[in-house]
Amino acid sequence: MNELIIRTYDWVPKGPRGFVRDLRLRWACEEAGLPYFIRTVAFDDRETNHLAQQPFGQVPFLSDGDLQIFESGAGLMHLARKSEKLMPRDPVGEAATLQWMFAALNSIEMVSVPWWFLTMTGQQDNALTGWMGNRLDQLEKVLGERDWLAADRFTAADLLMADVLRVGKVRAFGDRPKTEAYVNRVTDRPAFRKARADQMAHFAAADEKRKAADP
Amino acid sequence: MNELIIRTYDWVPKGPRGFVRDLRLRWACEEAGLPYFIRTVAFDDRETNHLAQQPFGQVPFLSDGDLQIFESGAGLMHLARKSEKLMPRDPVGEAATLQWMFAALNSIEMVSVPWWFLTMTGQQDNALTGWMGNRLDQLEKVLGERDWLAADRFTAADLLMADVLRVGKVRAFGDRPKTEAYVNRVTDRPAFRKARADQMAHFAAADEKRKAADP
Repeated sequence: MNELIIRTYDWVPKGPRGFVRDLRLRWACEEAGLPYFIRTVAFDDRETNHLAQQPFGQVPFLSDGDLQIFESGAGLMHLARKSEKLMPRDPVGEAATLQWMFAALNSIEMVSVPWWFLTMTGQQDNALTGWMGNRLDQLEKVLGERDWLAADRFTAADLLMADVLRVGKVRAFGDRPKTEAYVNRVTDRPAFRKARADQMAHFAAADEKRKAADP
Repeated sequence: MNELIIRTYDWVPKGPRGFVRDLRLRWACEEAGLPYFIRTVAFDDRETNHLAQQPFGQVPFLSDGDLQIFESGAGLMHLARKSEKLMPRDPVGEAATLQWMFAALNSIEMVSVPWWFLTMTGQQDNALTGWMGNRLDQLEKVLGERDWLAADRFTAADLLMADVLRVGKVRAFGDRPKTEAYVNRVTDRPAFRKARADQMAHFAAADEKRKAADP
């Protein structure tokens, strides 16, 4: 079997730790029982230092033998196709997983990340707040009717949606008990907890190395 | 073979015509030579009138026999897997197409649509403008090195990226000659021109029906 290699930054500030998107791929590998290795690219000068591998200077990107894949959604789709634990093999279950993965990224995250970005620049109630509330309300209705987005069980769609929703400010926005229960349910999975702990440990070790290099 | 049915609105105002996202699926079917039918849901009360089929009240959604798929990205992925014309069958070409489809939606459209939304509410130079310029500059570099995003030929990734980039205000933002040439190259394809003309005709016919019902 080809080696799976997940690339992330060698270090990040404390703020994004636990949320860097390599976590999506670590989590997926943990769920699926796929062995993987972590390798790094430099965080410093990231907007220019690895454009040949990721044209937007982001992480993660994934190697699977000769295959190179950037975009966490694409990497997750690649892993989902390797393991039935992440995506059912029947066409109906597979289509449902596919559509909810795209919904997580393109109907929710497309609003929640820019909304979050605007709150960071000082506008807690901003021009995207109405749109954001509307989308989250619609999702709350869906999650009032079922425990999992697709195929009546955990899939890669839940992994992605919960990862989008667990961001502190997004989670604190409004009062949506079904969504909150859903995020708790998905992030209580051992595979998520291990992936998050491993990411935190990775960046904590990087702090130690930085201290040793520049005491 | 199962029937492919693309659902769109029965009518929309003049502004979004030519940009409603059923066009992505029409275009893909035209490129692939896949026969398809257009069916409609009511535009009026769209936020509540078809939530059972699309939980965010959007269009398009796709039927393929018993399969139902919402999110234009998911529908496009489904169609891409039906036709080599939209996505190569070799693993490297397929992975490249996959990652650029996600990049179109999650690295470009995730910035361009909220940026566009902020310009509509009156802030031409807004809090997302720097991020937007940065992403488009990075893409300009990529498009300076090649004519197509993946596999050295047209794929579903170009369809999606060009559809994201051809939006008037996005296209007019800054001066990026390689990107402009790329958008021209992709939207000059007969399949795009047919899909766009068909959508325009669909909504024009709806005007006539409205006039006849309420003269």
